[in-house]
Amino acid sequence: MTYCVGIEVDEGLVFAADTRTNASLDDVRVHRKLHVFDYPGERVFVVMSAGNLATTQLAVARLRRDAEDPDATRSLRTFRHLFEVAEYVGEVLVASQVQAYDSGQHSGVSTQATLILGGQIAGERPGLYLVYPLGNCIAASPETPYLQIGESKYGKPILDRIIRPETALEDAARCALVSLDSTIRSNLSVGLPIDLALVRAGDLRVSQQVRLEGDTALYADIHENWSRKLENAVRTLPRFPWEPALPVADESVALPPLPPRRAPSRPDPGDQSAQQ
Amino acid sequence: MTYCVGIEVDEGLVFAADTRTNASLDDVRVHRKLHVFDYPGERVFVVMSAGNLATTQLAVARLRRDAEDPDATRSLRTFRHLFEVAEYVGEVLVASQVQAYDSGQHSGVSTQATLILGGQIAGERPGLYLVYPLGNCIAASPETPYLQIGESKYGKPILDRIIRPETALEDAARCALVSLDSTIRSNLSVGLPIDLALVRAGDLRVSQQVRLEGDTALYADIHENWSRKLENAVRTLPRFPWEPALPVADESVALPPLPPRRAPSRPDPGDQSAQQ
Repeated sequence: MTYCVGIEVDEGLVFAADTRTNASLDDVRVHRKLHVFDYPGERVFVVMSAGNLATTQLAVARLRRDAEDPDATRSLRTFRHLFEVAEYVGEVLVASQVQAYDSGQHSGVSTQATLILGGQIAGERPGLYLVYPLGNCIAASPETPYLQIGESKYGKPILDRIIRPETALEDAARCALVSLDSTIRSNLSVGLPIDLALVRAGDLRVSQQVRLEGDTALYADIHENWSRKLENAVRTLPRFPWEPALPVADESVALPPLPPRRAPSRPDPGDQSAQQ
Repeated sequence: MTYCVGIEVDEGLVFAADTRTNASLDDVRVHRKLHVFDYPGERVFVVMSAGNLATTQLAVARLRRDAEDPDATRSLRTFRHLFEVAEYVGEVLVASQVQAYDSGQHSGVSTQATLILGGQIAGERPGLYLVYPLGNCIAASPETPYLQIGESKYGKPILDRIIRPETALEDAARCALVSLDSTIRSNLSVGLPIDLALVRAGDLRVSQQVRLEGDTALYADIHENWSRKLENAVRTLPRFPWEPALPVADESVALPPLPPRRAPSRPDPGDQSAQQ
């Protein structure tokens, strides 16, 4: 499984992807799913992938080969509009699936894959597309400012509540990291490290690109901090009618500190606490 | 579809359930899925249900009939331990499924259902069980202090981050409401109103029971407030290395207010803003 999310806000684009691939529960590896095609000053694309790894690696390799071939008539460098690029990426995806399909038709393995494509071509504003296994695609919009592929459910509520076109680019990126972190926590098939790329509108290159491991200070901070913030947010939600008012009415005043989440070792409570 | 969550903390039990049932996208109705069996001072049980509505209504009706029959040898009122009640509820569930199965064997309709049972019998501490369609069951525990049935994914991250045995009962209830609200927002088959019941340890009755509609002040407040709180939480997460520091380092100081979420009507942006 996989989880990738692309976000389009007024300030630009955010891409975040996990890196875990698994053929079964005990065949787990790390593979990059976020691929940058960067032609500074001219155009920039980011492609994220979910689905059959052989298919997506083949598709990405072909995109790169074509882009590096000065004689190619169709490549990431030849189109004038992003929607044409999305169409072309869809064709390459379909062709990559077909090749795998022809070679192993009767194996029962799905060779399908889904992509997120985003970027900007000079003279246009940035855009974000979800490319389906059939090669067709849909665009993000102000009403639907993010697109997800893979294990999308756990990470969706935070996006639904936060992301609007006016959201600042770095806030959207923080939100993407929380969305990834929630998914990693709830689904074993989505795992660290996380690849994150930001494309600021008008930069015409990848503005920032980082890989976050579990012990990367920023990620550890976000992971640790987020639970605390949620806990405080829950505690300061409106009170039930039967509850006494909060000791401090002004919620900007910090609540008393919570017990540490990392408790010291303690005696095993044994079966008694688990059920009666 | 359905979403129900039961939470067990040191202070007691929380039960929250949506009320939407749907046979198809245009056959949507409201049915209660949270059922209280309350024998004050002696014992209290709450049963929540997901799955085939005919099955669950039959099972609940039988539980109630048996409990009201003073001659019944096996009923919610006869057992001395909660795990025996869970076993009995499982038997009633299996029998209710079988009856439906026998009558409509070839219709292709699943008559399966899943239940959450929680409560307390005098002399024991409270407990919480998930009863599977097979009639077997698992108990919540300090490491797994909540159980979900139905559309569980959207509402899981908030529970994973907040709920611990030490969480206050009302905070757990607020967290359950947020979990329901997230699910309602992301899945059309889960809908308002929400039924909420709290059983405080030792009360031996349902301590609080409320139904929350979209315009119930408490629910509207929570729904509105939660997005704001999350937005503030995202904005005060650690900064990326390339960002300037936050204008106010002390996060207990409130950030400038956000634009209203309910914007006035505006000109239709048209196709241009959606794609290029």
